[in-house]
Amino acid sequence: MKKPTTKIAHHTTEAIYIRGASLVDDLIGKLTFTEMMYFQLLGVRPTPAQTKILDAVLVTLMEHGLTPSAIATRLIYDSCPEAVQAAVAAGLLGVGSTFIGTMEGCAKNLEEILAAPGNEAIIAKAIARRFREAKQPIPGFGHPHHKPDDPRSPRLLALAGEAGVPGHHIRALRLLAVEVDAAWGRHLTINATGAIAALLGEIGVPREVARGVAVVSRAAGLVGHIREEQLDPSARHIWDVVTENVPYSGQ
Amino acid sequence: MKKPTTKIAHHTTEAIYIRGASLVDDLIGKLTFTEMMYFQLLGVRPTPAQTKILDAVLVTLMEHGLTPSAIATRLIYDSCPEAVQAAVAAGLLGVGSTFIGTMEGCAKNLEEILAAPGNEAIIAKAIARRFREAKQPIPGFGHPHHKPDDPRSPRLLALAGEAGVPGHHIRALRLLAVEVDAAWGRHLTINATGAIAALLGEIGVPREVARGVAVVSRAAGLVGHIREEQLDPSARHIWDVVTENVPYSGQ
Amino acid sequence: MKKPTTKIAHHTTEAIYIRGASLVDDLIGKLTFTEMMYFQLLGVRPTPAQTKILDAVLVTLMEHGLTPSAIATRLIYDSCPEAVQAAVAAGLLGVGSTFIGTMEGCAKNLEEILAAPGNEAIIAKAIARRFREAKQPIPGFGHPHHKPDDPRSPRLLALAGEAGVPGHHIRALRLLAVEVDAAWGRHLTINATGAIAALLGEIGVPREVARGVAVVSRAAGLVGHIREEQLDPSARHIWDVVTENVPYSGQ
Amino acid sequence: MKKPTTKIAHHTTEAIYIRGASLVDDLIGKLTFTEMMYFQLLGVRPTPAQTKILDAVLVTLMEHGLTPSAIATRLIYDSCPEAVQAAVAAGLLGVGSTFIGTMEGCAKNLEEILAAPGNEAIIAKAIARRFREAKQPIPGFGHPHHKPDDPRSPRLLALAGEAGVPGHHIRALRLLAVEVDAAWGRHLTINATGAIAALLGEIGVPREVARGVAVVSRAAGLVGHIREEQLDPSARHIWDVVTENVPYSGQ
Repeated sequence: MKKPTTKIAHHTTEAIYIRGASLVDDLIGKLTFTEMMYFQLLGVRPTPAQTKILDAVLVTLMEHGLTPSAIATRLIYDSCPEAVQAAVAAGLLGVGSTFIGTMEGCAKNLEEILAAPGNEAIIAKAIARRFREAKQPIPGFGHPHHKPDDPRSPRLLALAGEAGVPGHHIRALRLLAVEVDAAWGRHLTINATGAIAALLGEIGVPREVARGVAVVSRAAGLVGHIREEQLDPSARHIWDVVTENVPYSGQ
Repeated sequence: MKKPTTKIAHHTTEAIYIRGASLVDDLIGKLTFTEMMYFQLLGVRPTPAQTKILDAVLVTLMEHGLTPSAIATRLIYDSCPEAVQAAVAAGLLGVGSTFIGTMEGCAKNLEEILAAPGNEAIIAKAIARRFREAKQPIPGFGHPHHKPDDPRSPRLLALAGEAGVPGHHIRALRLLAVEVDAAWGRHLTINATGAIAALLGEIGVPREVARGVAVVSRAAGLVGHIREEQLDPSARHIWDVVTENVPYSGQ
Repeated sequence: MKKPTTKIAHHTTEAIYIRGASLVDDLIGKLTFTEMMYFQLLGVRPTPAQTKILDAVLVTLMEHGLTPSAIATRLIYDSCPEAVQAAVAAGLLGVGSTFIGTMEGCAKNLEEILAAPGNEAIIAKAIARRFREAKQPIPGFGHPHHKPDDPRSPRLLALAGEAGVPGHHIRALRLLAVEVDAAWGRHLTINATGAIAALLGEIGVPREVARGVAVVSRAAGLVGHIREEQLDPSARHIWDVVTENVPYSGQ
Repeated sequence: MKKPTTKIAHHTTEAIYIRGASLVDDLIGKLTFTEMMYFQLLGVRPTPAQTKILDAVLVTLMEHGLTPSAIATRLIYDSCPEAVQAAVAAGLLGVGSTFIGTMEGCAKNLEEILAAPGNEAIIAKAIARRFREAKQPIPGFGHPHHKPDDPRSPRLLALAGEAGVPGHHIRALRLLAVEVDAAWGRHLTINATGAIAALLGEIGVPREVARGVAVVSRAAGLVGHIREEQLDPSARHIWDVVTENVPYSGQ
């Protein structure tokens, strides 16, 4: 077996190189975090349009209030304030299939559509029916609170239009949306994870690391919760409230 | 006890608000990730100078090659490829006292200096001597590989100068650097964590969440390692190499 | 929706109750860890045979040398020695589909066989062929190093026989083993995860928490690695060795 | 530098050795989990008394109801049901300084007392006064709910007496308890973490891995919470209840 190598970073006594660029001369002060993240991930620098879209995705995913992840982070921070990273890690472990998996599932459907040029509408219809007949929710569509439409989705899709991306994944998403409404017999909103799946596709972020993008953004959100916990702690109250509201019912 | 509340986020059927701003109308497409992170963390939008510096810090901390964190992330990804977030979390758990604690330790020393206006040089000298006499490394100074100077530090400090920040923490760091060289009787470089401690101080990021900034940046770096592991895996080779190089020496 | 409750634990000023038993009067000093774990998990006390088997499973899974989990734990411990729990958690994150998923996959196959009383051999043959035709490894069978047979499996299966369990899952495993050898045209060993899948089935541990049993046992193993790291550290050497052996090959 | 080695495990084609013993011939079916954990951790097999005490400690620490750790585990399990190990890891990250650190702090005080043979009562008095004068809680003493006495402590200490251990750490704890009551001017209970600190000292488990013992036991407790979450889920209700009870109070 050929021995594995890395193409990410190396350093000398005087310099540090990342993806072939000098950290000090080419990156610090010249790239934003978002440009650097794209460069780290894909090995090429993003275009301004790609940066704009990745920024929009990262801004969208950062914060959603007292989510399961934020609650876990606050509780673990209170139990272990000496290790901020452990509190963030605890919350990040919740960036799993239940909430973020829908982004990956939607991306997969869009790829299936795009893999059939000339038959895209037919495939979109087949996908919508497949989920409907299996009585499964279709990833990227529907929202429990935001009705009739998730307000984030039109904003994200409009931004992509303004930024000037190829538009294939967005076109596939719109095709799929029409067929979803038809298969369900009512309007289902494109939700934020659906729009983000299309946007990440447009800027070349592979589906296999889409969850990683969510992890990075959510990490920043969770640090905000730790800061609030430092200033205005709620973890002990959360503990009490949960104990009261999930009462013992054993013998 | 007054019941705790949160000031971070809330939502209605039509809108999502973060720190009082509408996610859709005011944030998506208008803020970069770095601006949004600052806003999430501190509740106020950053100035352009603050954004520039936070970007520089985040770019600096993202990637350092096959660090313990990167190795842990790659190994856990290979064991559990279905949970990218778990692999990132495993690596983030290493953003602890050994490497990042020096940033916090340096920030603490700078705060001690700044808390004594008029006597700053005296306090700086006292701090340098205190560590020297205890034969302890002084956080933020020295580097095993980069000699005589860590190339990142002058770049970061120059950037802060150009960006136009108040300059108090940087002045304190420079005072301390003079006294460190005097106390040690030789030149110790201001290292990257020392420079970053000063820069985060300049832009108002509290020491208590400085580690959180490192966690966010490193999360992006680790996603890059997962991507490389997907394309050019090294985890199994790492396992073999470690087994060979840490041989059994028991009975 | 009916409000959820818990049947696990409650306490008064004078006493703590777990699963309806008094921790102080009924459990401490009266149950071993293994008995208590079974009681915590299933709500009933184990028979001596069940305890014997759960002990054997836990002993088998505890330690396997410098596995990816053990390496991750050692590296994170070195980066963050103040949080032993974080180092253990990092290693446990690797108890995922790659290594432990085979235990769950084998348990699923055994359940499929047992769900067809009277046709068990037919189902076993169908399962073996299904995996063979899909050119997939069949979970619970084969081992890269231990040939012709994994030495743990006959020991575990013999123990179960001596302990006196119902024997249904073991019978299903043996039926499957015959059909696996037939389908592959050569002998594939029942490996340790296959034997454990059968044993956990025999003692009523549901497949959905089988991975949890592995997590508990491995946690103890990883604490052993932390102890060795404290006395005879290898993390820095591992870092060096990996850096040398996964060289930079970028531009 | 001498190259590091490991004394924990190695294997051949036919056999697996742990701490020099054959896993198949000497350990599986012959050691309980608790004996194996002691052997893995310390490299020697425990006496029956040591096993009895380690079992008692593990049984005591396993389960405490809907603790912050248990809540975190349930929330992360709901977000990521495909990775049971991640849910356990999230909860374990809370086995930190706030709750378990007191065990380590008490062990440290007991060691300080035992390091001064002939002056043990004097040192015990000095320690009690030091904490009292600093207005700090003294680790291992006091309990918010269990008054006047934590019911677990007399049970654990009695067990150690019956089992026949050397008794030095227990004597030191009792000396300290007298001085704590004197310094505080009222009775403070020896709490469970105090009693456990003494018991782990009696059986030779080093303070540096005492937290690891708690981690292992709590891992088993958390798997029990995951099982209940599978059968009678409460995570979504917890999310709702927290959202209601930590209301938004921003602009």
